[in-house]
Amino acid sequence: MSKKLTSRSQDYNEWYNTIVLKADLADYGPARGTMIVKPYGWALWENIRQALDKRFKETGHVNAAFPMFIPYSFLQKEAKHVEGFSPQLAVVTHGGGEKLEEPLVVRPTSETLIGHAYAKWIQSYRDLPILINLWNNVVRWELRTKLFIRTTEFYWQEGHTAHATAEEATLETKQMLDVYTDFAVNEAAVPVIPGEKSEGERFAGADSTFTIEAMMGDYKALQAGTSHNLGQNFSRAFDITYLDKSNVLQYCWTTSWGVSTRFIGGIIMVHGDDQGLVLPPRLAPIQSVIVPIYRNDTDKTMVMETADRIYTILEKADIRVKLDDRENLSPGFKFNDWELRGVPLRIEIGPKDVVNQSVMLARRDMLGKKGKLSVSQDSIVETVTNMLVTIQLAMLDKATKFRDDNIHDVTSYEDFKETVKKGFARVWWAGSSDDEATVQKETKATLRCFPSEQPGGTGTCFYTGRTAVKVAIFGRAY
Amino acid sequence: MSKKLTSRSQDYNEWYNTIVLKADLADYGPARGTMIVKPYGWALWENIRQALDKRFKETGHVNAAFPMFIPYSFLQKEAKHVEGFSPQLAVVTHGGGEKLEEPLVVRPTSETLIGHAYAKWIQSYRDLPILINLWNNVVRWELRTKLFIRTTEFYWQEGHTAHATAEEATLETKQMLDVYTDFAVNEAAVPVIPGEKSEGERFAGADSTFTIEAMMGDYKALQAGTSHNLGQNFSRAFDITYLDKSNVLQYCWTTSWGVSTRFIGGIIMVHGDDQGLVLPPRLAPIQSVIVPIYRNDTDKTMVMETADRIYTILEKADIRVKLDDRENLSPGFKFNDWELRGVPLRIEIGPKDVVNQSVMLARRDMLGKKGKLSVSQDSIVETVTNMLVTIQLAMLDKATKFRDDNIHDVTSYEDFKETVKKGFARVWWAGSSDDEATVQKETKATLRCFPSEQPGGTGTCFYTGRTAVKVAIFGRAY
Repeated sequence: MSKKLTSRSQDYNEWYNTIVLKADLADYGPARGTMIVKPYGWALWENIRQALDKRFKETGHVNAAFPMFIPYSFLQKEAKHVEGFSPQLAVVTHGGGEKLEEPLVVRPTSETLIGHAYAKWIQSYRDLPILINLWNNVVRWELRTKLFIRTTEFYWQEGHTAHATAEEATLETKQMLDVYTDFAVNEAAVPVIPGEKSEGERFAGADSTFTIEAMMGDYKALQAGTSHNLGQNFSRAFDITYLDKSNVLQYCWTTSWGVSTRFIGGIIMVHGDDQGLVLPPRLAPIQSVIVPIYRNDTDKTMVMETADRIYTILEKADIRVKLDDRENLSPGFKFNDWELRGVPLRIEIGPKDVVNQSVMLARRDMLGKKGKLSVSQDSIVETVTNMLVTIQLAMLDKATKFRDDNIHDVTSYEDFKETVKKGFARVWWAGSSDDEATVQKETKATLRCFPSEQPGGTGTCFYTGRTAVKVAIFGRAY
Repeated sequence: MSKKLTSRSQDYNEWYNTIVLKADLADYGPARGTMIVKPYGWALWENIRQALDKRFKETGHVNAAFPMFIPYSFLQKEAKHVEGFSPQLAVVTHGGGEKLEEPLVVRPTSETLIGHAYAKWIQSYRDLPILINLWNNVVRWELRTKLFIRTTEFYWQEGHTAHATAEEATLETKQMLDVYTDFAVNEAAVPVIPGEKSEGERFAGADSTFTIEAMMGDYKALQAGTSHNLGQNFSRAFDITYLDKSNVLQYCWTTSWGVSTRFIGGIIMVHGDDQGLVLPPRLAPIQSVIVPIYRNDTDKTMVMETADRIYTILEKADIRVKLDDRENLSPGFKFNDWELRGVPLRIEIGPKDVVNQSVMLARRDMLGKKGKLSVSQDSIVETVTNMLVTIQLAMLDKATKFRDDNIHDVTSYEDFKETVKKGFARVWWAGSSDDEATVQKETKATLRCFPSEQPGGTGTCFYTGRTAVKVAIFGRAY
């Protein structure tokens, strides 16, 4: 705690790593690239999970669980899928002391297992749609890892649906993109750009991939969730067929979509500051922390009495509140500690507050005097509830402004090269996958997405000079 | 659906397997011994999880997540632990296309990873106790598998705590045994015998292992949850130390405890009957199903109007209710279908019920006329709520009576041999681990536990003839 945080401007990467460790979100596991998610980080993930799960259920999905072991031959059934994932696989070759006849892959994602099961479960149009979601852990071997952002094992949800028609699959893919956008904006206060990936950035085995892209505090992009229209690629590879109403055998249309613990990295990098983490109230494990302030035992008795009372009132109102009654730690130390951990609202209670029947609120998103406000103890539930809403909205506003200020319309490659050093470039694009690769090689920027919101009409591609029908967002990315 | 279920008396094993598949609880995964938990089975597990998680949090525990990969050398640090688990390991030898320098084990349980982390996290007595629980998946290579009861990969929770004193660790071990007992009895309506395992049946690396043992419908025992006092075995192996108040370095005392998806197998075998599954209301994914009955369109309109209304009322009251409005299926077919799936309460609504402002309740735990009751639509929430409580208690009573009727006090080995064919034998026991092994070889029965509730005093060991100070329960087991 004593060591000062690295500032963001000094070394963004070091700032990030230090926060993750010091705010007790996560730690390194002993096996290369693995992560221990500590209780505070896991509570954040549980809140994310709950907010997403509610939306999945509202849109008709149910949860299930599929095994983590996949026979290697399954991956080979979809040519692009195996090509995309084979460099990242962890392979089990021995079980129960013996060499296995066929090696097992630890799932990097479950499309193949799902394909195998759905082929068995689906007989007729009456069995459709199947709308299943899995909350689980997956493994992708990574060379360079970073806690939450890129770890060998990570936690996520993967939705897998099967439909009778192409239209339904398209609607599902877009619906889940909307669900992700709504979650990011309204729960995490993370403004995102929903859009479609270019061919080169598609999921291995998808006809089209949609994404939500967020801008981090260092202007880099984070792919924060994806929704894939798998067309009939997996249904043909795994024989997922159904008899339609006319008794004709048809291939199903399938989708998959996912959000992972990587999103936590996004929250840290969108909202964090030089004092540490800043968590959006709707997802914060602790929404409000009460810090009692006293210098002697007489003060202590009366302050603690009020602090206990306020704690009980807030707790009963389902506000996630903590009373920091640790002894032998100064209020100043506690302030820093909870600021580091990103608790949205601090409630200070000192002897004067007890006398005045007030408490002092201090906003995490607005440090210093301007974020402090003395309020009455009367209707404290309403006051705190409203303040949490205010903080949530202010965080979204601030992040949105930062992002919008750093997206620039660019028409020349020279300007593009400068822009992507400190922001996103919005450009007319008519290039090929090879052109994308060249741009990436020369500028480190990739095509993040063709935003769902398009200006319409045509423009001139900044790179090829050809007539373009779509605008794209480019940026350097995690 | 058309195929009749095998009866329990005909072939208990076949009866079990058929129910798991036909009630849509689970399916076989493609890799040997793995299991797909289907949405209905997973919803049951989610309810179990919620009921346990609530109790863990009430007793001060928090959730976290640890990696699934363990360096092989970690397991070797605790001699008995590696001896116990090495025949069951799945080993990852290749990652990212290359052979790993050190193979990784897919966790069979996480004591070693926990030991490594706690050693790092704990410095002083102020860091204690650590009370962490993990909800995750583990792998134990099994030769003979059975859905839910014994699968290569299974789902569970594993609690891991570290304490300053032996007394605290002992209290924690017993507290969690109480939590499991309370959960089993009051949520699952599964009567269990809490007690201590003999030395031979202890967890690999524990000083003592406590268990809850349940009797299945075929009189066999199921170990339904365990709580281990690990003493200082893991703290010495992993150097989990703390500075006490006098600044002296001490080893911690640790515990671990777990309940798994195996418990679902227990629920099936304790409550199921020849018509299928019977689920306890408190855990049932669907507590009540409404089946509308009509023969023509006029009746249909008025019946569906009432059915919709009752559905909405019950749903708003947080009763987990489903309206079975499937077309082209007869009420009789639907009755069988929901009986197979074990829904505790059926609500039938026909034209006469509409006229009489009544509905017909039918209890799953009491099939036929005696379980049917016509009730008023007024105060339907209260009626259904009370009926669900009645069913829950009746299921517990029935299971308790069955179990108690089939536990016999036995004083001779001859009687013992007969008793364990159709029940548990309660005996005075003063034998050794070798004696236990011989008894198992000759009778297939194992020492399930020394029950927490002991008669006191001494008796004569039925097997060795020696004076015994403890009574033990023996039974054949899953």
